[in-house]
Amino acid sequence: MTDDLHLRVQRLEDEREIACLIASYGPSVDSANADSAANLWAEHGTYDVEGWRMDSRDDVHAMVSSQSQRDLVANGCCHFLGPCVITVTGNTAVALCESLVLLRRGEEYVVWRATANHFELNRLDAGWKIVSRTSRLLNGNPEAHGLLRAGLVGERATLNR
Amino acid sequence: MTDDLHLRVQRLEDEREIACLIASYGPSVDSANADSAANLWAEHGTYDVEGWRMDSRDDVHAMVSSQSQRDLVANGCCHFLGPCVITVTGNTAVALCESLVLLRRGEEYVVWRATANHFELNRLDAGWKIVSRTSRLLNGNPEAHGLLRAGLVGERATLNR
Amino acid sequence: MTDDLHLRVQRLEDEREIACLIASYGPSVDSANADSAANLWAEHGTYDVEGWRMDSRDDVHAMVSSQSQRDLVANGCCHFLGPCVITVTGNTAVALCESLVLLRRGEEYVVWRATANHFELNRLDAGWKIVSRTSRLLNGNPEAHGLLRAGLVGERATLNR
Repeated sequence: MTDDLHLRVQRLEDEREIACLIASYGPSVDSANADSAANLWAEHGTYDVEGWRMDSRDDVHAMVSSQSQRDLVANGCCHFLGPCVITVTGNTAVALCESLVLLRRGEEYVVWRATANHFELNRLDAGWKIVSRTSRLLNGNPEAHGLLRAGLVGERATLNR
Repeated sequence: MTDDLHLRVQRLEDEREIACLIASYGPSVDSANADSAANLWAEHGTYDVEGWRMDSRDDVHAMVSSQSQRDLVANGCCHFLGPCVITVTGNTAVALCESLVLLRRGEEYVVWRATANHFELNRLDAGWKIVSRTSRLLNGNPEAHGLLRAGLVGERATLNR
Repeated sequence: MTDDLHLRVQRLEDEREIACLIASYGPSVDSANADSAANLWAEHGTYDVEGWRMDSRDDVHAMVSSQSQRDLVANGCCHFLGPCVITVTGNTAVALCESLVLLRRGEEYVVWRATANHFELNRLDAGWKIVSRTSRLLNGNPEAHGLLRAGLVGERATLNR
């Protein structure tokens, strides 16, 4: 009875930790905090945005540190990720959310991107980390729809495989 | 002591399941996944959007399958639902969130709708399902404010009753 | 064993309660529900928006009741707060999220603000309440970045101190 409870509490904690991890992405990027953003990924975790592929935590660090990202932050940007659908299976998990990127223009903000985001995560010694993130614009691209469909049922993304 | 813990963990699981259900709506609709969207509703669950009333899971399925929705998805749309306020009472629950609908226009996205969403849910054999969703634009309509006020305190919506 | 479980469940409940509290802000303000919004704060809790400082629950109540807020609500507005990063430490907590404020303009909505929000909360007899909220536009202002950086690691905001 208590053992069963332990497993159920562990599951809730896993989902909470993953939700918190993903909720940390926007604030990390929007403050040009490359260490914080990179630390969400496993050392060899990947991030594929519209086919541009980062292959490691270091690549994510370099992206957040880049001049183009710093220019976005200096002008004012907001990476706004929504609530996740999370499916934990032992030491692996899939999470799905949609996200917006807003840019300041004059006295207002424009929505530059609306995106489907599919995450694969592993439980490592340092906690849950992203091993694969795949993001595609919601612009009619069937790859975006495939990410949404896979994420809804906790399946891995098959894009590019 | 353990029984009390069981009830508390059950409550957390209920809220987690409801949050996940509602977080699944946007990804289902934005991928034109009518089966997934319809399956969030009870068989005779309702969805009232601005007075247009769907009266069953089949009606929701037909809406998501409609040509107008497929046109939105083909052009690029994002149904973005925010974090919910959830109140579980035994086998029933009320959930409240605000949502945006974004449409792609040229190289950017415009916000077409900002909406108050009030959900009533029942715990069924197949898990938590929506028995009633009522959505009203945040355009000064007092019905939207009524939905927000009811949802904040876990009360059922009295609109149209 | 059971004691340990109690602590873990308590932590999950604390985070759930704080997430729900913050998710209640938008629906409260967007329905001009000043009582509900003010009740999220401790009696002497503060809210600093762009340097404009409210110093009590009563001040928050007055802001939400003001003619300018009622005009926003009558025209149609949406205070959209994203998922939080929450760090509970005993009877205190820090929460962080980004938020959007949308205003209706004609047949659409424009994004007027995109903001970093840092919350400090205390567990009081009446439950978790906001003792300090600090919000800064994401417009390149280093204070916004400081709020994001502090919130990500559960630290108090040092702005104005």
